[in-house]
Amino acid sequence: MKDKGLLLVVSGPSGAGKGTICNALREKFPNIHYSISMTTRQSRTGEVDGTDYYFTTNRHFEELLQEDAFLEHAKVYDHYYGTPKKSVFAHIDEGNHVMLEIDIQGAMQVKKKYPQGVFIYVVPPSKAVLEERLRGRKTDSEEVIAGRLSKARQELDWIQQYDYVIVNDDLHEATARAEAIVLAEMCSVDRNGCRIQQIQNMYQ
Amino acid sequence: MKDKGLLLVVSGPSGAGKGTICNALREKFPNIHYSISMTTRQSRTGEVDGTDYYFTTNRHFEELLQEDAFLEHAKVYDHYYGTPKKSVFAHIDEGNHVMLEIDIQGAMQVKKKYPQGVFIYVVPPSKAVLEERLRGRKTDSEEVIAGRLSKARQELDWIQQYDYVIVNDDLHEATARAEAIVLAEMCSVDRNGCRIQQIQNMYQ
Repeated sequence: MKDKGLLLVVSGPSGAGKGTICNALREKFPNIHYSISMTTRQSRTGEVDGTDYYFTTNRHFEELLQEDAFLEHAKVYDHYYGTPKKSVFAHIDEGNHVMLEIDIQGAMQVKKKYPQGVFIYVVPPSKAVLEERLRGRKTDSEEVIAGRLSKARQELDWIQQYDYVIVNDDLHEATARAEAIVLAEMCSVDRNGCRIQQIQNMYQ
Repeated sequence: MKDKGLLLVVSGPSGAGKGTICNALREKFPNIHYSISMTTRQSRTGEVDGTDYYFTTNRHFEELLQEDAFLEHAKVYDHYYGTPKKSVFAHIDEGNHVMLEIDIQGAMQVKKKYPQGVFIYVVPPSKAVLEERLRGRKTDSEEVIAGRLSKARQELDWIQQYDYVIVNDDLHEATARAEAIVLAEMCSVDRNGCRIQQIQNMYQ
């Protein structure tokens, strides 16, 4: 018997720095798998099936939905997106960790189906900093920025549903906190039933 | 309003490396306070009242016991030892962390009175390693070593009552895990009610 890996679920407003933190986690813990989503949208130039997404048809996706084959899913602009349960659980059962960088709606679906997940919310230290970061990207119009800020305000109401909050005031510190969360969870007694049993047996 | 500090409770068999890990934690987190125990035994040469212990009389200790003034206490060879509640809670209320390096009986008393504590169990990776470490100290007779090993075996039954288990296979790694636990707990949503409220308010 082997202890299960962690299912890490990382959410937070656009501009909070989730992506950078997730990349740092993958570098630090090479046995963290990024889950690949399934989608019914057309693949874009350069996207590879099975690497960027699993591309599939509406009909197949809806069949899988019927079979409850997704940890979470959403329909955005007529296209489905979803996280297939099977591959996630296969990794976890092998003792590897899986990371999902998903929005709050998705995270809450995952929490319902797998409350043992580790739910991390990344938050910018203040509205001013978030605004500055969104502007700094130079990709969004004023209108889009205003929309993102208003969405961020609403999204903050969900922090209490998560296990951990990382205030991203400094990227280096925030990354250290994320790494600490993974390392600490790996020491959690609840997650080390088999390991503890083995140690206890050794002393018999 | 301010979020409370952590009450870290570190236990584990003699020879597990608790002391070294606790010292490393204090170095890394300078706002961790070591709780000073109260005792009715005589002070030894060099021991300073209020630094090494609070030395007191049997009568005073028993009065305090009546007032439920201890987080945990024990009587060893006719002498009382105890952790005064008041100073521990004063630090925690100020947002500072307090560390107790105590035996399992003490830790279980603390857990009853303050289940929000962070309970860490340090365990040697195997009986052979523990034996080697105990012998390496060159302070204990064979009889004492045998006694410690047999006690360690019994004490391992208590791991499941703790929140975290640190397998001390490598002191550097074990210390990193302990630091990660403190850092992760500092990010726990349950421990950051005030901080989260402040952030949410900032976005209004």
